[in-house]
Amino acid sequence: MLSKGGCPKTMLSIRDALEAVEGRWKLLILFALSEKPKRFKQIAKEVNGITDKTLSKELKNLEANKLIRRDVYDTFPPTVEYSITPHGMSLEKVLDELHFWGLSHRKKNIVK
Amino acid sequence: MLSKGGCPKTMLSIRDALEAVEGRWKLLILFALSEKPKRFKQIAKEVNGITDKTLSKELKNLEANKLIRRDVYDTFPPTVEYSITPHGMSLEKVLDELHFWGLSHRKKNIVK
Repeated sequence: MLSKGGCPKTMLSIRDALEAVEGRWKLLILFALSEKPKRFKQIAKEVNGITDKTLSKELKNLEANKLIRRDVYDTFPPTVEYSITPHGMSLEKVLDELHFWGLSHRKKNIVK
Repeated sequence: MLSKGGCPKTMLSIRDALEAVEGRWKLLILFALSEKPKRFKQIAKEVNGITDKTLSKELKNLEANKLIRRDVYDTFPPTVEYSITPHGMSLEKVLDELHFWGLSHRKKNIVK
């Protein structure tokens, strides 16, 4: 793809993707939910360092972008669970490549 | 990879990667430079919407992370050119996957 470096149409779709997953948290939340549906507190625990306020905002944004779903169960008290949608799941390869690159980036910055 | 959903070590490397390319601009700048080395004004033109101040800051950060190189040529007046390093080039697959996902995300949000 980088052979098409600078191509304006390709840049547009990369920009679309970056806007949907902007910031340092969204992809980490999606990664946590890719294992199984989870409750708010569980996500907050796994995504180390995120505040409740930020997590709440990010979850709303991810829901609006149809990347996750919020389900309320009629228990007492009511249970709320977040799960990843097929569209969110389709970010799998992006997460894969970020993971691999993150590993090599860490090595590079420790060695040098 | 998503079968390893939530794995703390994988989350760490994704976090490393996200920190290095944080924000909406860095990957777009790298994509512009992946075609060939470019001068400041050329990058500013291709990465639509970025201000000179932000571009200057992002270029410094990318250089510090060894993702790009800044070369000054002894011409009159001096010429400054930015080029992508092999390490920056190794983000190719991340850009690929973001590009493909961005395309499908756009379709999904237009259709629905």
